[in-house]
Amino acid sequence: MLVIKLGGSAGINYEAFLDDLARVEEPVVFVHGGNAEFDRVSKLLGIEPRHVTSSTGQSSRFTDRETLETMLMVYAGKINKVLVEGLQRRGVNAVGLSALDGRIATGRRKPAIRVIEDGKPKMLRGDYAGSIEQIDATLLRLLLGAGYLPVLTPPALSSDGEAINVDGDKLATEVAVALGADQLLVFSNTPGLLADVHDESSLVRTISLANMAEADAMAQGRMKKKVQAAQDAVERGVGRVIFADARIEQPITRALAGAGTTIRA
Amino acid sequence: MLVIKLGGSAGINYEAFLDDLARVEEPVVFVHGGNAEFDRVSKLLGIEPRHVTSSTGQSSRFTDRETLETMLMVYAGKINKVLVEGLQRRGVNAVGLSALDGRIATGRRKPAIRVIEDGKPKMLRGDYAGSIEQIDATLLRLLLGAGYLPVLTPPALSSDGEAINVDGDKLATEVAVALGADQLLVFSNTPGLLADVHDESSLVRTISLANMAEADAMAQGRMKKKVQAAQDAVERGVGRVIFADARIEQPITRALAGAGTTIRA
Repeated sequence: MLVIKLGGSAGINYEAFLDDLARVEEPVVFVHGGNAEFDRVSKLLGIEPRHVTSSTGQSSRFTDRETLETMLMVYAGKINKVLVEGLQRRGVNAVGLSALDGRIATGRRKPAIRVIEDGKPKMLRGDYAGSIEQIDATLLRLLLGAGYLPVLTPPALSSDGEAINVDGDKLATEVAVALGADQLLVFSNTPGLLADVHDESSLVRTISLANMAEADAMAQGRMKKKVQAAQDAVERGVGRVIFADARIEQPITRALAGAGTTIRA
Repeated sequence: MLVIKLGGSAGINYEAFLDDLARVEEPVVFVHGGNAEFDRVSKLLGIEPRHVTSSTGQSSRFTDRETLETMLMVYAGKINKVLVEGLQRRGVNAVGLSALDGRIATGRRKPAIRVIEDGKPKMLRGDYAGSIEQIDATLLRLLLGAGYLPVLTPPALSSDGEAINVDGDKLATEVAVALGADQLLVFSNTPGLLADVHDESSLVRTISLANMAEADAMAQGRMKKKVQAAQDAVERGVGRVIFADARIEQPITRALAGAGTTIRA
C-alpha cells in the first residue's frame, strides 16, 4: 500500500508522472496540491493573496472564504479532475475526492489567529484554515477494495462542518498513517532534501530518525514542513518516506529504485 | 431510490434545499448544475461565451478546452464541494463526484460540429462536448450501499478519455434509468412546466406519455430539453418524473407531496 503525494509547484512533468503512476501495480492513494495554478487563477480573478505572520514568526497565507472557494475551484475542481481525466485516459479507474468528501479528514478551525501586523500583535478572524485531527479511512478503503484509485486533495472538514484549508503534505502523512502504508512518496520540483538549497547535487540520500535534527536544520522554506511531516509519518509506523523529483521521466519508478531522499526509522 | 437534480440557475434557495435534502430518508443520488455561477466566474476570468447555431437551428455553447476547464472549476470544484460541505454540516455523509470519476458516464465526443455562422454552414473543431452513451453505476451503487450520498455533476468522459460537457438533465435521466429509480425530481427556478411561460399560475399538473406532444409544444427554451429527458426517463422505466421549484422552503417535501408537474406513463 503506497501513498503518493504530488506537489503543485511549477516545473512538474504531469504527463510523465501519470504515465508512471498508471504502471504502479500495488494499491495507491494519490494526494495532490495545486499551488502554482492556484496563484495563477487567483491573479486572474483579482484576488490578492494575504500573507500573515504568526506570533511565532511563521508566515502563512490567510484563507478568507473567497480564497477557500478559489481553492475548491482549483484544487478540487480543475487539478483534481484533470488528473482523474489523465488517469482514465491511461486506463486507470480513478475517483477524485477532496478531504471533505466522506469526511476523510476532519479537524479544528481556528476561529481567530494571533498575528503580527506592522510589528503589533493582533487577533484576526475569518481564517478558513486548520489542522487535521482525524482521518476516517472508510471511504478510501471502500474504493481501494473495489479497485479504484482515489485521487485526494485539500480542503478538509472542520468539526463545525466548514471546509478548512489544510497542508497537503500533512494530509498525505495522516492518510498514510491511517492506512498503515508501507511507503509515502512525496514529489515536488526538487531532487529531494538538499544540503545546500542552491546546489541540486548536494542531495541527502538517507535520513534516519536519529539524525532528524540535522535534516531539519538543512531544510529551507516548505521543505521544513515536509521533513517534519516525514518524521511524524515514520514515527507513527509508515515504513519509509521518500522525497523525490517530479520534473523527470519515470519519477515514481526512480524513487522506488532509490532516487531522492529516503527517511526511515 | 430517488434521483434529485438541482439546476444551477439564479434564484435557487440552496439553504432550504439542503435542509430538506438532509431530511430525505430513502437512498438518493443528487445531481447538480451550476450555470449561473459558471457565467459569473467565466466573466471574471475574461472568457467570452461562444454560442453556435447547429444546422438544425439549435443554439448551444461551444465548449473549447478553456471553457471545459472553467466548468471543472465551477461545477466539479466550487458548486460540488460547497454542496458537499453543506450536507456534511447537516450530518449527511456526502461524496462529491464528477461523471468522470469511476467512469460514471461515458459518451462520444463529436470531433467536429456542423454550425451555421454568418448564414453559412461550417465545420467547427475543438468542441469538448458530447452525448452520454453509457452509465457505469458500479461506483454509485458502492457508495449508496455504504450509506453515502453521492453528489454528481458533469462533465462525463469520452471514449478517448477526454472530459466532455454533457447536459445535466440528461445525466440525471441516465443515472435514474441505470439505477432503476422510482422517481426523478428535477428542480429549477420555475414551479414546473407552464402553459404560459410568463404566468407562473399556468402550471401544468400532470403529463402522461399520451400527451407528451402537447407538453413539448408548450415547453420553451431549456424546458424543452427537460420535457424530452423526462419522457425518455418514463419510457425507460422510471416511475415518475417531477419538475419542481427550488426557490421555496421545503422544495423536496412539497414536490413529493404533489407540487410541480408530474410526468408518468
